[in-house]
Amino acid sequence: MFFIDKKQGLCYYQFMNDKEIVYMKKRYTVGMDFGTLSVRSVLMDADSGEEIAYEEYSYPHGVMDHCLSDGTPVKADAAYQDPADYLLGFDTVKRVISSSGVKPDEIVSICIDFTTCTILPVDEGFKPLCFDPAFSSVPHSYVKLWKHHGAQSYAESITSIAEERKEPWLDIYGGKVSAEWALPKIVETFFESREVYDATYRFTEAADWLSYVLTGEESHAVCFAGFKALWNENTGYPSREFLRCVHPELGELCATKLSDKVLGAGKIAGRLNQRGAELTGLLPGTVLGLPMIDAQASMPGLGAVGDGEMLIVVGTSNCHLINSKKTVAVPGIAGYVNEALMPGMCTYEAGQSGAGDCFDWFVKNCVGDRYWNEARERGISIHKLLREKAEGLIPGESGLVFLDWLNGNRSVLCDYSLSGLFAGLTLSTAPEEMYRALIEAVAFGTKIIIDRYREYGVDIEGLFAAGGIPAKDPMLMQIFADVIALPITVPDCPASGARGSAVAACVAAGIYPDLSVAAHKLSPKKKKVYEPIERNVAIYKRLFEKYLELHDHFGLCSDLMKELRVIASDAKKLQDK
Amino acid sequence: MFFIDKKQGLCYYQFMNDKEIVYMKKRYTVGMDFGTLSVRSVLMDADSGEEIAYEEYSYPHGVMDHCLSDGTPVKADAAYQDPADYLLGFDTVKRVISSSGVKPDEIVSICIDFTTCTILPVDEGFKPLCFDPAFSSVPHSYVKLWKHHGAQSYAESITSIAEERKEPWLDIYGGKVSAEWALPKIVETFFESREVYDATYRFTEAADWLSYVLTGEESHAVCFAGFKALWNENTGYPSREFLRCVHPELGELCATKLSDKVLGAGKIAGRLNQRGAELTGLLPGTVLGLPMIDAQASMPGLGAVGDGEMLIVVGTSNCHLINSKKTVAVPGIAGYVNEALMPGMCTYEAGQSGAGDCFDWFVKNCVGDRYWNEARERGISIHKLLREKAEGLIPGESGLVFLDWLNGNRSVLCDYSLSGLFAGLTLSTAPEEMYRALIEAVAFGTKIIIDRYREYGVDIEGLFAAGGIPAKDPMLMQIFADVIALPITVPDCPASGARGSAVAACVAAGIYPDLSVAAHKLSPKKKKVYEPIERNVAIYKRLFEKYLELHDHFGLCSDLMKELRVIASDAKKLQDK
Repeated sequence: MFFIDKKQGLCYYQFMNDKEIVYMKKRYTVGMDFGTLSVRSVLMDADSGEEIAYEEYSYPHGVMDHCLSDGTPVKADAAYQDPADYLLGFDTVKRVISSSGVKPDEIVSICIDFTTCTILPVDEGFKPLCFDPAFSSVPHSYVKLWKHHGAQSYAESITSIAEERKEPWLDIYGGKVSAEWALPKIVETFFESREVYDATYRFTEAADWLSYVLTGEESHAVCFAGFKALWNENTGYPSREFLRCVHPELGELCATKLSDKVLGAGKIAGRLNQRGAELTGLLPGTVLGLPMIDAQASMPGLGAVGDGEMLIVVGTSNCHLINSKKTVAVPGIAGYVNEALMPGMCTYEAGQSGAGDCFDWFVKNCVGDRYWNEARERGISIHKLLREKAEGLIPGESGLVFLDWLNGNRSVLCDYSLSGLFAGLTLSTAPEEMYRALIEAVAFGTKIIIDRYREYGVDIEGLFAAGGIPAKDPMLMQIFADVIALPITVPDCPASGARGSAVAACVAAGIYPDLSVAAHKLSPKKKKVYEPIERNVAIYKRLFEKYLELHDHFGLCSDLMKELRVIASDAKKLQDK
Repeated sequence: MFFIDKKQGLCYYQFMNDKEIVYMKKRYTVGMDFGTLSVRSVLMDADSGEEIAYEEYSYPHGVMDHCLSDGTPVKADAAYQDPADYLLGFDTVKRVISSSGVKPDEIVSICIDFTTCTILPVDEGFKPLCFDPAFSSVPHSYVKLWKHHGAQSYAESITSIAEERKEPWLDIYGGKVSAEWALPKIVETFFESREVYDATYRFTEAADWLSYVLTGEESHAVCFAGFKALWNENTGYPSREFLRCVHPELGELCATKLSDKVLGAGKIAGRLNQRGAELTGLLPGTVLGLPMIDAQASMPGLGAVGDGEMLIVVGTSNCHLINSKKTVAVPGIAGYVNEALMPGMCTYEAGQSGAGDCFDWFVKNCVGDRYWNEARERGISIHKLLREKAEGLIPGESGLVFLDWLNGNRSVLCDYSLSGLFAGLTLSTAPEEMYRALIEAVAFGTKIIIDRYREYGVDIEGLFAAGGIPAKDPMLMQIFADVIALPITVPDCPASGARGSAVAACVAAGIYPDLSVAAHKLSPKKKKVYEPIERNVAIYKRLFEKYLELHDHFGLCSDLMKELRVIASDAKKLQDK
């Protein structure tokens, strides 16, 4: 127990401890959230949960999906990043310190979260291979971002081999290995850039690489190992026998090129060394919490850590996370990891590989001139204009139903060769109707995931939403509530990932006993709840049946979308001749 | 035999007739083409085929598909016109006369062609009911344009009744009665506006109404009666028994409210009376040829009248016409009429209910701002910009395949509740790829029709294209040639409909014995031939299989598109409550 007192302009805490009063300085933590395009840092009061300062930094190289920074072209579906950008991102920590006026000795710990599987090859000194001039023009030496989809064919053959061999771990991942995960991305490098593969000491998650950079100690956080590298507590990484079936020379891959220092919830990554201190402006010895997956970091950030509480992170892509006391294999769900975040809890993750990306694509490509003119005249964004117009529509009236697979399908089909489909178009179809149908499609995709969780007994006891979109798009959230037919809570927390990292840092520093206690104590006070509207629920139930029909037909019955990709690839080969 | 001489500034012909020389003045005809948005008139030299003058007039009321001109709203899928616009269109005849300097007594005949089934209710004096102030706010009293689709449900029940009763005429129309035809449109009026139905003396094609206006004589050209009013030379109109099954009070519909003065190829509609002369500026007594269907008028206009020669009219919608010596029922083809144009020939018609309409919709709604800016900066139209970009694409490389049913499907599915579908979309899909895919979809739809003709033994011996689009879009024509895998001839003839009417007027005036002779003698001299490119043919063959899969799935197997319309209609009803 404690109470707040003010003394000489500084805040002190008076702890009552056997009637003695211990004066202690105010305590802060830093949370860093490394996203797809930028890094965000939050400086938080570890006792009140107040966010004292916030800074953001956009990666200068962004996503390299057409060419590397020296102009070297990359293949279609590729998405690379330059790890030097991440190091520059630590400057945001210096900036939250200076803008807040907080002193480094008042900052007790730091934690980071990161996109995943965002993986890079490093040498024995953990230097990224792409920093070596010999490899600076070789795409595979760079960071493969989570949404790098160049490994789809490898993922498919890895899945077939695992199916054939009845690998015990396959069920954990819903029966499919995703092209976004570590093994397909590494196998892609093995087959397509053998010199990079051979020169690699470790293939490491960007998050784990940064842990090494800050502390000089190697580790592999269980959430990354479990969700993205096919590791589990019982059988470890996939076996040598399995790997040899992928290729005879790959038998030692996991044993030699992946870290065996897998650390679970409750552990810390280490303490900042001199280099870590210089990069961040924090004191050497400051505790570095174990890094988390960015989407999962939002759960403690928002206070969504109860049994059966689901968090939907709606952003560039969507992520559907549940903590549950049940441990069960759910087909098509991207995976589950025991004690990934909290003792006694299993964390499940599913995802939609396109959401905000799809809306942006639509707005950039599919909205006529007159809309842009109107938006300009009124001085509002084109998204805002479309939302305004789409808000005026009644659910179902446009007669449209779309498949939201413009970036493939992560859950529950786990197939990146699928593509988007717009049905119901007529000469009267207006852009706002298509925009709304695209949002509805993403909501239907989320419902498919929720229904799948429920079907296998993982019940949803509460629904939270976070990410870039929910706070600024009430229409989207209402559509989600109406489609899913459950209330959705949107806490007022613009940087939930960074905040969650700051909360985790509190636990790492020993201020709270575990993440549940910390998250509950520090949860954001302001929130908005979207209640389902009965009339909309009824219409969406009927529209969802149509979505499901398309989903099952093109996802499970027809090969049309795959074959279109084959035709496209053959057509391009023909031209190159 | 004749030769040309010049005398006193006027051209005379010297006919050698038993060695006597007969001097005769130069002879001209006028052809008028009443389209969806405008009327075009051509003044032609009846001996050389030279087009002397051309004038165009856009209907001031255009297409009334949201409301009537007094603001009365119309139902969804409706498309009305104001017949007063057509009368104003006769001014183009006065303008071709005055701009050419030709004297009215040198003009021996006139012929018109018209969109169809474009039908209106008139009173006993052939005054349109919508001219009556009592009906001026009643939508059903106006002209129902060909693309008025408000009668879809009536068309479906008429088809079922005809199927059940095994009506002998159903095969002629490929087994389905289209919502665009006369009977469904009239039945719609009967059920939805009984007072208009009861007040109607005749439901008449706009073309036949204009014949009456110009000559004071009632007639019903066989091409309209045969293709659009279920009339045939053997059994006439549908029987009383059949009509009574549609509704007990409709038994006398055809006998009383449709004209029985059906006139076939080779007949004339009459001669201009005083009113006709005043409207056109021609002399009273000038011959008026029997009106033709606009698309069919292009066949003599372009010289495409041989056995097995097909004309594809590519415009707002597409029309596929063949003249053949064979008479055979082809399922899904919109119909055939013996001697509709020429003695001894059967004319077949199929159609696609959307083409240019779809491209326009796409450009207006689905092309991003940066394209419009680029078009503006370069001072070119957005269509031209998209064509430029789309021309740079290799067939198949975009991985897209669309269904072109944004305005429903006329042939071979004859179902206006179908809608457009875009498949294969990804976050890399660019507007020019979608634009090209839409054009390809229309070409695939044409191939479906051609394959169906062939399947039933109506062989295609030559392919012509005309209409607003072929002359200005070589890319589209090349895509058609590559998809269909046949050479396509595009005669240089911007107003082929009006020209064809002028050619038919020559026959009506007795200058040539029949349309074959006239069309051959007067065919346009300049033409462009598109040869299929082997490599493209091979890719399109594979893409077509995917189109066919979607076509058959959504057209024949799945009710999804129909059900989307039901949901939309229910949603709107819910709102109105």
